[in-house]
Amino acid sequence: MRPGSKHQYTQENDSAQIEGRNAVMEAFRAGRTIDRIYVQDGSRDGALASIRREAAKQGSQIKFVAKERLDQMSQTGMHQGVIAVAAAYAYAEVDDLFAKAAEKGEDPFFILLDNIEDPHNLGAIIRTANVAGAHGVIIPKDRAAHLTPVAARASAGALSHTPVAKVTNLSQTIEKLKEKGLWFVCADMDGEPMYDLSLTGPIGLVIGAEGDGVSRLVREKCDMVASIPQKGEIESLNASVAAGVLCYEIVRQRTGAAARRS
Amino acid sequence: MRPGSKHQYTQENDSAQIEGRNAVMEAFRAGRTIDRIYVQDGSRDGALASIRREAAKQGSQIKFVAKERLDQMSQTGMHQGVIAVAAAYAYAEVDDLFAKAAEKGEDPFFILLDNIEDPHNLGAIIRTANVAGAHGVIIPKDRAAHLTPVAARASAGALSHTPVAKVTNLSQTIEKLKEKGLWFVCADMDGEPMYDLSLTGPIGLVIGAEGDGVSRLVREKCDMVASIPQKGEIESLNASVAAGVLCYEIVRQRTGAAARRS
Repeated sequence: MRPGSKHQYTQENDSAQIEGRNAVMEAFRAGRTIDRIYVQDGSRDGALASIRREAAKQGSQIKFVAKERLDQMSQTGMHQGVIAVAAAYAYAEVDDLFAKAAEKGEDPFFILLDNIEDPHNLGAIIRTANVAGAHGVIIPKDRAAHLTPVAARASAGALSHTPVAKVTNLSQTIEKLKEKGLWFVCADMDGEPMYDLSLTGPIGLVIGAEGDGVSRLVREKCDMVASIPQKGEIESLNASVAAGVLCYEIVRQRTGAAARRS
Repeated sequence: MRPGSKHQYTQENDSAQIEGRNAVMEAFRAGRTIDRIYVQDGSRDGALASIRREAAKQGSQIKFVAKERLDQMSQTGMHQGVIAVAAAYAYAEVDDLFAKAAEKGEDPFFILLDNIEDPHNLGAIIRTANVAGAHGVIIPKDRAAHLTPVAARASAGALSHTPVAKVTNLSQTIEKLKEKGLWFVCADMDGEPMYDLSLTGPIGLVIGAEGDGVSRLVREKCDMVASIPQKGEIESLNASVAAGVLCYEIVRQRTGAAARRS
């Protein structure tokens, strides 16, 4: 974390206006959270249509305005028919998660998401991470939900407190975090019942994608595979519910361990 | 449960065609799950507009078709411009939940929802109920999400296995169930930590509405108030995540109790 900053968000990440077709499209591609776009009314430009599609996909608000309004709003004088307003939240670094744990004087407790695609689930998991006292969430760059406005809303404000880091390769990140002393547990149906595992100490909890579960490469890196007891006909819980159940088994064991130490 | 029926759904509840404005509107009002409505194309009728609004609200698919198509589909010859297709799932009776517990030879474990309004949450909770081995879900008739197609989808198929009963008055139902030996626990921030409560035996878990929590009247009927430890800045979990966390604390305690008995 940079000195003097209260949390992981730096000035450069504050709510910002992005102007012009390439810049706006690039912001979407980079996974920036675009709250709102202003598009020139009546334009039939193909690039603007792509931007509108992307905005709709990510749940950004789309406002159609006259060219005069865009001219007035523009800070660069080169809006090319589109101005985007990016959100104040942005991605943290993995070091920020360690800083959060150090700040609270606790063993690191991180949640890693292996290709969660539903932004509602991503947001709900960030919310759960905050309430359960995890120090942050790590998501992969590709093929996964990122911090869209939908995810931000589902986080119920947790995004302003709980750092979310984005990494290129989840299994490489797990390797690096192991060197820093973390143990990894992933959830899978054929694992050991979670109640029987020892989930105290520095821990990374890996939650798999809806449907497919944790990918093979990531699973192989994990020290433990935990199963949530399944007693009905349906095979699995919603990903954010599964994350909550596992988080609170970790909370229960950590609380018990702390009580035994004192 | 009626003799010979495999689960709580009887023939009269199977996928059915409902014709005519009043019948379709009545089906929506009664909380029936309407998968799809066929509406006469180009009609400006006010009653049809109300039906379309209701269908949109509940996530039913809306198809605009020519009058000739409706005439062809109609089984009564009196479609009045609208035909609805109702889903196969329907509500169970509270007795069906007891039957499910008896069938599995287990102490009853019911989940009661105090005005959960989001059908995604309702569906996810029905899914959780199934996976966690609860014997059914009880919801109130008014001011609550019911079995819309959105809820059915979010249940991921659990609705075909886990009975959902609808009752007029939740606190009266709690009274009656207490007479049958159930203990009730509701979730609230100022309760005792869930790990410290005894959640074995015949139990009813009450989950409150998003935002407001459990209503005062219902809370007063409960034997125990459980809190989920809250360690961050955000005050509460998503309702379906909270339900999952509490269900699995019950599962953990029941499993442990069963192990001690054997």
